[in-house]
Amino acid sequence: MISMKEIGKLCGISESAVSKALRNHPGIKEETKQRVLEVAQKYGYQPNVMVECMQTGRSRSVGIAFNNFGCQFAGAIMRGIQQTLHKAQYDSYVICWDMMVNDNINIFDRFARRRVDGLLLFPMEHVPSQEHKIALQKFHNPIVLIDQSVGGLDFDYVGSDNVNGMRQLVEQLIKVDYERIGSVFYGEVSTGIERKNGFLAAMFEHNRPINSKFLLELSPTESDIYGKIRTLLAANERPEVLICFNDYIANTALNAALDLKLRVPEDLAITGFGNLPLCENLRPQLTSVEQYAEEIGRRAATLLLDRIEGRITGKAQQILIPTQVLPRNSTKKLK
Amino acid sequence: MISMKEIGKLCGISESAVSKALRNHPGIKEETKQRVLEVAQKYGYQPNVMVECMQTGRSRSVGIAFNNFGCQFAGAIMRGIQQTLHKAQYDSYVICWDMMVNDNINIFDRFARRRVDGLLLFPMEHVPSQEHKIALQKFHNPIVLIDQSVGGLDFDYVGSDNVNGMRQLVEQLIKVDYERIGSVFYGEVSTGIERKNGFLAAMFEHNRPINSKFLLELSPTESDIYGKIRTLLAANERPEVLICFNDYIANTALNAALDLKLRVPEDLAITGFGNLPLCENLRPQLTSVEQYAEEIGRRAATLLLDRIEGRITGKAQQILIPTQVLPRNSTKKLK
Repeated sequence: MISMKEIGKLCGISESAVSKALRNHPGIKEETKQRVLEVAQKYGYQPNVMVECMQTGRSRSVGIAFNNFGCQFAGAIMRGIQQTLHKAQYDSYVICWDMMVNDNINIFDRFARRRVDGLLLFPMEHVPSQEHKIALQKFHNPIVLIDQSVGGLDFDYVGSDNVNGMRQLVEQLIKVDYERIGSVFYGEVSTGIERKNGFLAAMFEHNRPINSKFLLELSPTESDIYGKIRTLLAANERPEVLICFNDYIANTALNAALDLKLRVPEDLAITGFGNLPLCENLRPQLTSVEQYAEEIGRRAATLLLDRIEGRITGKAQQILIPTQVLPRNSTKKLK
Repeated sequence: MISMKEIGKLCGISESAVSKALRNHPGIKEETKQRVLEVAQKYGYQPNVMVECMQTGRSRSVGIAFNNFGCQFAGAIMRGIQQTLHKAQYDSYVICWDMMVNDNINIFDRFARRRVDGLLLFPMEHVPSQEHKIALQKFHNPIVLIDQSVGGLDFDYVGSDNVNGMRQLVEQLIKVDYERIGSVFYGEVSTGIERKNGFLAAMFEHNRPINSKFLLELSPTESDIYGKIRTLLAANERPEVLICFNDYIANTALNAALDLKLRVPEDLAITGFGNLPLCENLRPQLTSVEQYAEEIGRRAATLLLDRIEGRITGKAQQILIPTQVLPRNSTKKLK
């Protein structure tokens, strides 16, 4: 690509005159401006966004702390983010949380050096340490947390209405007379706790007995989810329906059931959460809860841009996107 | 975050003296340097990478033209890229190809304005137009194409050895006496053409009759892949094994087969390509071909950095990553 210096040589003027001409400065003759623009276009000159950034203090870029490339849920959120950033003509730096954490690199310093105008934070694989929380709080530009809220951190947050989403699903299962209801949730992470709370709320409200043998709580770092679920399903006493934290866990539960020669949904019904494309790509297709992941991404990016550009000020916002139950063939017909 | 100006105020020196102190300039007293460093650290000062970039002409960032967030194959390549960039301390801008193309925005101008040192290009959803090819050729920094090569473009390229990967798979199927062999490939894209060529080469070498009724060629924009495959499988004359372009297509074929009450692999064997995590999450599990997608990502990023930093010069390289057949239960036992 041609530089301003080179354009100057071709036009027989100084580099600073080229710079002025490109900024339509009144001190430059119209004829010279035309010539500069022609040469700039012919040789594909592009303004240096960094110069603009240093002049305005804004880089028109945001940092995205991401991990799960290839995950359908995180991927859909990312698509939503990119749609919004694209429309607003912002670019994004993508950095992998977990690589940074494993190498003990401060991700926030890394983003600060690039002078990003704000940060979008996807959930980490591990629950954030006290050190991360302090680093987060020190960051000088707006931050929006996505999907997982973090205890003790008062940041803008966009995620699903997990409590009501799960409550509605369980109520629909109770309405079609499922009695022995089991569940698989993650502990420690906010989404796991919220979905479990929604599950318990519906069970209590409808006076359903809760059998602790049917409840499985996974650590966020559990490596043998399949084995844990298979053991639960292989026991003499077995739930009629297994409510799973998300669609991936439901996929694993479906495999454990099929490998045990259980018929789904006749011997065991299974539900997911997320309504990811995989729900329709399994047999039977999975009953799930639509989370509108792209919308989560769009709202998070919009909120961040509103903060950056000063349209929203004041205390942290919590935006919960409503969900919707999507019945399919892994349960009996819901009403 | 504190600025150099503010550090200067706290230390009672000028902004330019702060800048010199931070760069360990000999003209600044040791005592002053210590004081500046203390204040900088205390208030979390971060150097502005953009200043460095303007001084050196290098941004230590690369542009990644991406699309398929949530795709397990593209996601694994992206992980490999990020591993390599992370180790080399490069950051990455991620921009969505297809959004740009749909809005008629020149993605290369966008990257040029950010002064990225090079580009990694994932396949677009559509085959690149003549206009894109011209824009690509005009880009002033190194470019590495990933997964798909593009006819008429002489760029560095890293992808799979598709021809031999498919040939080896077909040979193993022929060895266990599959006779009626069908296939589903994409047309137009390089990976589709290469895999089809590998398939045909193995069939010709082993004198297998090719039944054109068993061959399905998909357009890269085909929207009803399920319907097309189901029609093929519902015909009176049906293949014994269906070789699919990739694991996603094999998943679709498996569903079409199961929905037609065919037993897999007894009535119909199915193979994928990619060896993505979904192969193990389906029942039966899919026989596939390992592409080592993370390795593709690492090699592509390494090649790009080698070009950027001048370790490799001269004509475009083609790196083909060897593949490996991974037998599972969607075929009879391979030898």
